[in-house]
Amino acid sequence: MLRLSVPVGVRLETASQLDVRPGGAESNVAALLARLGRRTAWCGALPDSPLGRLAANHLRMAGVDLDGVIWDVDGRMGLYFVEFATPPRATQVIYDRAHSSAAQMTAAQMRWDHLLDTQLLHLTGITPALSADCRNLTEEAIQRARSAGVAVSFDVNYRAKLWSAAEAAATLGHLIEGVDLLFCSRADAVRLFGIDGAPADAVRCLAERSRAALTVMSVGAAGVVAWDGVTLHQQPARETVIIDRPGAGDALAAGVLAGWLAGDVALGLRYGVTLAALALSQHGDMVVTTLAELEQTVDGGAILR
Amino acid sequence: MLRLSVPVGVRLETASQLDVRPGGAESNVAALLARLGRRTAWCGALPDSPLGRLAANHLRMAGVDLDGVIWDVDGRMGLYFVEFATPPRATQVIYDRAHSSAAQMTAAQMRWDHLLDTQLLHLTGITPALSADCRNLTEEAIQRARSAGVAVSFDVNYRAKLWSAAEAAATLGHLIEGVDLLFCSRADAVRLFGIDGAPADAVRCLAERSRAALTVMSVGAAGVVAWDGVTLHQQPARETVIIDRPGAGDALAAGVLAGWLAGDVALGLRYGVTLAALALSQHGDMVVTTLAELEQTVDGGAILR
Amino acid sequence: MLRLSVPVGVRLETASQLDVRPGGAESNVAALLARLGRRTAWCGALPDSPLGRLAANHLRMAGVDLDGVIWDVDGRMGLYFVEFATPPRATQVIYDRAHSSAAQMTAAQMRWDHLLDTQLLHLTGITPALSADCRNLTEEAIQRARSAGVAVSFDVNYRAKLWSAAEAAATLGHLIEGVDLLFCSRADAVRLFGIDGAPADAVRCLAERSRAALTVMSVGAAGVVAWDGVTLHQQPARETVIIDRPGAGDALAAGVLAGWLAGDVALGLRYGVTLAALALSQHGDMVVTTLAELEQTVDGGAILR
Amino acid sequence: MLRLSVPVGVRLETASQLDVRPGGAESNVAALLARLGRRTAWCGALPDSPLGRLAANHLRMAGVDLDGVIWDVDGRMGLYFVEFATPPRATQVIYDRAHSSAAQMTAAQMRWDHLLDTQLLHLTGITPALSADCRNLTEEAIQRARSAGVAVSFDVNYRAKLWSAAEAAATLGHLIEGVDLLFCSRADAVRLFGIDGAPADAVRCLAERSRAALTVMSVGAAGVVAWDGVTLHQQPARETVIIDRPGAGDALAAGVLAGWLAGDVALGLRYGVTLAALALSQHGDMVVTTLAELEQTVDGGAILR
Amino acid sequence: MLRLSVPVGVRLETASQLDVRPGGAESNVAALLARLGRRTAWCGALPDSPLGRLAANHLRMAGVDLDGVIWDVDGRMGLYFVEFATPPRATQVIYDRAHSSAAQMTAAQMRWDHLLDTQLLHLTGITPALSADCRNLTEEAIQRARSAGVAVSFDVNYRAKLWSAAEAAATLGHLIEGVDLLFCSRADAVRLFGIDGAPADAVRCLAERSRAALTVMSVGAAGVVAWDGVTLHQQPARETVIIDRPGAGDALAAGVLAGWLAGDVALGLRYGVTLAALALSQHGDMVVTTLAELEQTVDGGAILR
Amino acid sequence: MLRLSVPVGVRLETASQLDVRPGGAESNVAALLARLGRRTAWCGALPDSPLGRLAANHLRMAGVDLDGVIWDVDGRMGLYFVEFATPPRATQVIYDRAHSSAAQMTAAQMRWDHLLDTQLLHLTGITPALSADCRNLTEEAIQRARSAGVAVSFDVNYRAKLWSAAEAAATLGHLIEGVDLLFCSRADAVRLFGIDGAPADAVRCLAERSRAALTVMSVGAAGVVAWDGVTLHQQPARETVIIDRPGAGDALAAGVLAGWLAGDVALGLRYGVTLAALALSQHGDMVVTTLAELEQTVDGGAILR
Repeated sequence: MLRLSVPVGVRLETASQLDVRPGGAESNVAALLARLGRRTAWCGALPDSPLGRLAANHLRMAGVDLDGVIWDVDGRMGLYFVEFATPPRATQVIYDRAHSSAAQMTAAQMRWDHLLDTQLLHLTGITPALSADCRNLTEEAIQRARSAGVAVSFDVNYRAKLWSAAEAAATLGHLIEGVDLLFCSRADAVRLFGIDGAPADAVRCLAERSRAALTVMSVGAAGVVAWDGVTLHQQPARETVIIDRPGAGDALAAGVLAGWLAGDVALGLRYGVTLAALALSQHGDMVVTTLAELEQTVDGGAILR
Repeated sequence: MLRLSVPVGVRLETASQLDVRPGGAESNVAALLARLGRRTAWCGALPDSPLGRLAANHLRMAGVDLDGVIWDVDGRMGLYFVEFATPPRATQVIYDRAHSSAAQMTAAQMRWDHLLDTQLLHLTGITPALSADCRNLTEEAIQRARSAGVAVSFDVNYRAKLWSAAEAAATLGHLIEGVDLLFCSRADAVRLFGIDGAPADAVRCLAERSRAALTVMSVGAAGVVAWDGVTLHQQPARETVIIDRPGAGDALAAGVLAGWLAGDVALGLRYGVTLAALALSQHGDMVVTTLAELEQTVDGGAILR
Repeated sequence: MLRLSVPVGVRLETASQLDVRPGGAESNVAALLARLGRRTAWCGALPDSPLGRLAANHLRMAGVDLDGVIWDVDGRMGLYFVEFATPPRATQVIYDRAHSSAAQMTAAQMRWDHLLDTQLLHLTGITPALSADCRNLTEEAIQRARSAGVAVSFDVNYRAKLWSAAEAAATLGHLIEGVDLLFCSRADAVRLFGIDGAPADAVRCLAERSRAALTVMSVGAAGVVAWDGVTLHQQPARETVIIDRPGAGDALAAGVLAGWLAGDVALGLRYGVTLAALALSQHGDMVVTTLAELEQTVDGGAILR
Repeated sequence: MLRLSVPVGVRLETASQLDVRPGGAESNVAALLARLGRRTAWCGALPDSPLGRLAANHLRMAGVDLDGVIWDVDGRMGLYFVEFATPPRATQVIYDRAHSSAAQMTAAQMRWDHLLDTQLLHLTGITPALSADCRNLTEEAIQRARSAGVAVSFDVNYRAKLWSAAEAAATLGHLIEGVDLLFCSRADAVRLFGIDGAPADAVRCLAERSRAALTVMSVGAAGVVAWDGVTLHQQPARETVIIDRPGAGDALAAGVLAGWLAGDVALGLRYGVTLAALALSQHGDMVVTTLAELEQTVDGGAILR
Repeated sequence: MLRLSVPVGVRLETASQLDVRPGGAESNVAALLARLGRRTAWCGALPDSPLGRLAANHLRMAGVDLDGVIWDVDGRMGLYFVEFATPPRATQVIYDRAHSSAAQMTAAQMRWDHLLDTQLLHLTGITPALSADCRNLTEEAIQRARSAGVAVSFDVNYRAKLWSAAEAAATLGHLIEGVDLLFCSRADAVRLFGIDGAPADAVRCLAERSRAALTVMSVGAAGVVAWDGVTLHQQPARETVIIDRPGAGDALAAGVLAGWLAGDVALGLRYGVTLAALALSQHGDMVVTTLAELEQTVDGGAILR
Repeated sequence: MLRLSVPVGVRLETASQLDVRPGGAESNVAALLARLGRRTAWCGALPDSPLGRLAANHLRMAGVDLDGVIWDVDGRMGLYFVEFATPPRATQVIYDRAHSSAAQMTAAQMRWDHLLDTQLLHLTGITPALSADCRNLTEEAIQRARSAGVAVSFDVNYRAKLWSAAEAAATLGHLIEGVDLLFCSRADAVRLFGIDGAPADAVRCLAERSRAALTVMSVGAAGVVAWDGVTLHQQPARETVIIDRPGAGDALAAGVLAGWLAGDVALGLRYGVTLAALALSQHGDMVVTTLAELEQTVDGGAILR
């Protein structure tokens, strides 16, 4: 997906220039893990056009393997338009991704051997919202990963502009049963699964709906809680000045996964909240950072000087 | 008028680029009411040059009828320069509108039938500050409107860089006697009319100086109060992040007028504070919005997500 | 349609900003005629979104009546991406207008009475290329116009990225039979209708395929020829420096129509080549000019000083 | 004066940004001579505002002494708007300098001792076009300079937007009688003084109207001719790509003066045509260069590599 | 030095444009004092290249005398790169000034008579950090100034990226013994000299290490304290919104020196905190202001209106 | 290396923004071959800083393997500043690469096994100009490649700002003896080796100084000639509009190498002149293109439409 945006204070309907940046929940996670030194690949469909290459360029720059990309000769690029705003207006998002290459990809096009040559497969609840084909593809990916002994990470990521809460709950409620790591915002837990209550309770309640060994619930400005079946992990959010909100949830997921891959969930949560803060303080959905910077930032906390 | 400005953090004296935007108290009100779906026209003088057309283009884009414009072949465009700033500096405004087409227009040039083909005529205290001709024109407009049964709305809008408080008080004190809706900031009430005290008292005190059926006093960050002879309306300001201050007062007036035209003063005040907040959160004097957005924003209050 | 472009020397696949401008063959003609003082309206479908309003704003600014716009609540905006280039690369265009509001409008949605309250209806061969609905709509429009005694102007405008030459020839060959003014580039005459030969012959040969009282053939840098059944009009192109090519053909059409509406075909051709040169020398598809500027430019020819 | 401009391809009436640059014929000459290492001062009136300081900053940066500036507390800055264009449109200039500080300065305000502490006083025909006061001031300056034994250089610089050719001819025809160096374009010689014919003849014909020891006539793309009473100097123009035309004539004058001050008229003409080409190839009226660059460029002629 | 920076929210490693601005502690002080009306000169080495002239242009624009500049034909310009940031990242600075003209200048190149034709010589602890030559040069400057009866002002300005605290303490501890005015931040007093405790005590403790008649200690957001051997001066910082931090310390020093030169230390501190706030609220290291603005701002404190 | 530039018409000494782009002769070739689908790696030293990562990001985006990069913890980035210009000024380049990480790398740091895991090693005459270490490194690379059976390609690329023609001739004359493919501009052949005469003769004369199986001589606007010991290949340059000259020679080399790797020298020359034209028509040293675009462009030659 490409994100076309206007800065705070400018209205989309009177814009004369749009900032172009890559986006997409899974690709944000892949790019960030690659920047932190992990071997990652992104598999999906892109139009074989300058717009498709634009998205690919950003992933390749981050170090993501693109050998599994399905290049769609006549496809269109998924777009989304963002009008950043301050209260009393909300930041406004217009999705324009119907009929995109991504929405039209099918399980038959996927290079499964390439996709599953990994420790971990990360999926989100946005893909099944795009089309019936995408729903099937997601389901098949989870099944194949399980058969291949590949851990599956899943971020619920409900998008009200793509489908209704009822549809999403039906589809996603089923999909999350079979995953190994589960990410869900507290708001989505309420909207989709009716799981309310204090975060510490809600995350455990959510965990019961899945076989996930780790369930992570983001609680906005309050940070994140996680439940691994034994321990309740809690990590407050880092203070920052919000410059660009989209992508913060993906950065959180990438941080948690980096910790999980290193065998340290608590470190993952600390990584996650720090990367989310880095995401908020930079333009764009994809976080530009290094492992060195993350480690320096996660330990001390920077002081502007 | 055209506004030429530099963004916060840049000094005018070292600028290499200026942002150009339309401005002008009456045209801001007209453009906003047009965007909210009201039939509006703006009557005034513009130079018949690219600069005059620049101003006209923005009004026409908003949907304002410009059939009453006096196109001045050899005129100059009124300009004002703005250097946005943060404390300890104040935002600085340099007016350069002497000898402009607007300052030189006369009652004889006005197409009165076109001007008065309306329910409501909106005037401000800036016009009579420009020249003796403009003072006469304003006076004649009020008289003609009354004769024609057209309601007159008047925003005091004292500009210290255009005339002294004493001059303004003399002229405006007289003009406001005959209007139907009166807008005045609390600061202007103090400076021009010596009306001090709590807003709830001050607005009633001000109301006594006019035949206005509705007197509206803006009280800065505290919001707005209004007196209709029976009820004291109070509406707190909306929270926002200030990006561009000029035009907020005009947005307030437009909102109040939209409510008044719909027969609901209280709604007008809620519209007004919301539109003022929208004005503060956007670049430019003229607010870009829609009635749908206003109604969505006025009801709930947006949360940045 | 919105046009998203990068300037010469920049590649789309490495862009970080896109220039946004309105486009669309019929709207370009309507906007230019409005700027020249003609009463014009544009009827078509736009999404009821900031992107749809962006397009509408530019038309309204030019003075075009938009009362006949079909506001499509859930529609998508037609887009096209342009990468301007110099040889050895060609300027590249990527259309992304499938499934747009425009491509999905139907005859049933059209406010026919509003559309036909005019002397002249201008259509292009792009609309029928968008969808079967659009093809039917175009056909119905021509029929209804004839019944209502409204002259129909038609610009062939073949777009190879939207349909094959064979398909276009079949559809357009039929449509042009019933029009009153016919515009076609020499290249399209060859590609679609196999009409080759010298322009003076080709235009007459093309004229035989239609009932058009005036047939106009643009011949690129060589200018334009026209045949009115009696006289062969020829007008060489104006010299210019090409800054932005799209829209030049629409400017030519607008100029010819302006002359035709004034009862002077020869003047129309002189207007047309001048407006085409103005289009080439400005950024954007829509030409910004005035009747005064056109008359000054068409007579003398400007010298850069 | 400040110059507010839009780049080629952009229309002033749809501009959202203006480039701000200093301008003014005399100040351009002073700044360029200062950059070439000459001690120079500029005397004139500027508003005591950020806009006045903006102009002063650029002169001070070039090394021009500003001790003789008349700081006008309530003055307005002279402006001019430029819309660069390519054929068939001409580059368009809108002057907005009536009532400016410069137009209102009087002989009584001038620090004559400071002004005349120089070898050479350079004046142009633009100043007397601004107001009656400016006309008197120019005349007095020439007389005082002659009394003080200071050479006077005068550039005719007729501006049709400021006064008629007849008015200009009357005033300037008188003024040039008493100067020591006279600059005039061939076009102005025709328009004001009816001096037509080949440049070699025209320059001698013009020279007879003045006591000037050197008369310099620019002949556009053909270069420049000069007559010193004995020798006819001819220097063809340098080839360049025109990026920004205003200021080229002032650059020519500065080059000729630099040569004249060094006692070498022929060198001055070679300097002049090179500086004019440098002016054309840079944005802005004021040329940024160094003596080293000039000498390197004047000798060889650069080849783009 | 030139500063190359990216704005908040942009990462240096993905930048496509850099803002270029002049910098350098001593030149910031000189430029600001010149803007406040003081006769100032800057002596140092610059490459004889466009980059060296870029730095010189900004100083000349401010009114600083550059006759003492050592133009280094083959030198390189000292650079520093700044990535502005918000927490959790700190603003990051990359120095690239090794082998620069400034780092290679020697005492033998200095025009001592020109340098010492002044009331006050201002030095900082950055210069001796650059090279052994610069260390010797600084030492010689202090000695020569004392011999010539010129007061020496010294700002400790420890830069951890240029040398270790131990090296700096050894060199600077020796240098500050012989100065007349001493500036040191509280953080540097701790790091270099182990002087801790309340500011009021620390500044007196620091004062004992020097013969300075005035010792000034900046205490960040808390403002500044100063000790003149008799009186303890305290001045709280001004409230502002930080737009660009570098240069605030130099602005404080310039303000204190302006007061000291006027014989009023307390005024100097008030000037200093106001100029520091002006520095923080503007882009760039060099403060653009006027004495009039300073006096207006220092007295009342501006309210954004 | 990073390239910091100002566009045509802007002077470096008055710049306020610099465009940042990656550069470097070998990296340009590597990036372009990678974009054409070849497996390529770049080995060299970069500072472990945002500036080093900026350069690496662009190479990684193009698809170049960076496993052989020597990350230099305290190094500085090589820079060069470009002021694009039109006649009479020449485009001016300021190198600032002394003491850079690249200039300080040694043979001992190189991962030779990685470097030589290739069919072809491409080197240029710029590297040995940087330092004695770089000279030794280049020599060792050629020897090791020959021992390992890896073909060596060498582009003479004389840079007068880095060393004298005599020094370059001595070093490079020796180095080119042992290479397999030799690139040299005609101008360098004259300056370094005194090889004058018609290109067809000069290329053969140059070929005698080396064991190269293919010697390629670029002849500016005339195109390129090549001698493979049997056949003289000639290929005229493609027409284009020059937007950005640096990098065209590297693009030529990449094209020739692409052809050579495919076993078709004549195709390589056609590729080369087309890629050089693409380089000239894009901003930046690195060419953005695809194999599909190259093949489409090389065959037909595009017509701007």
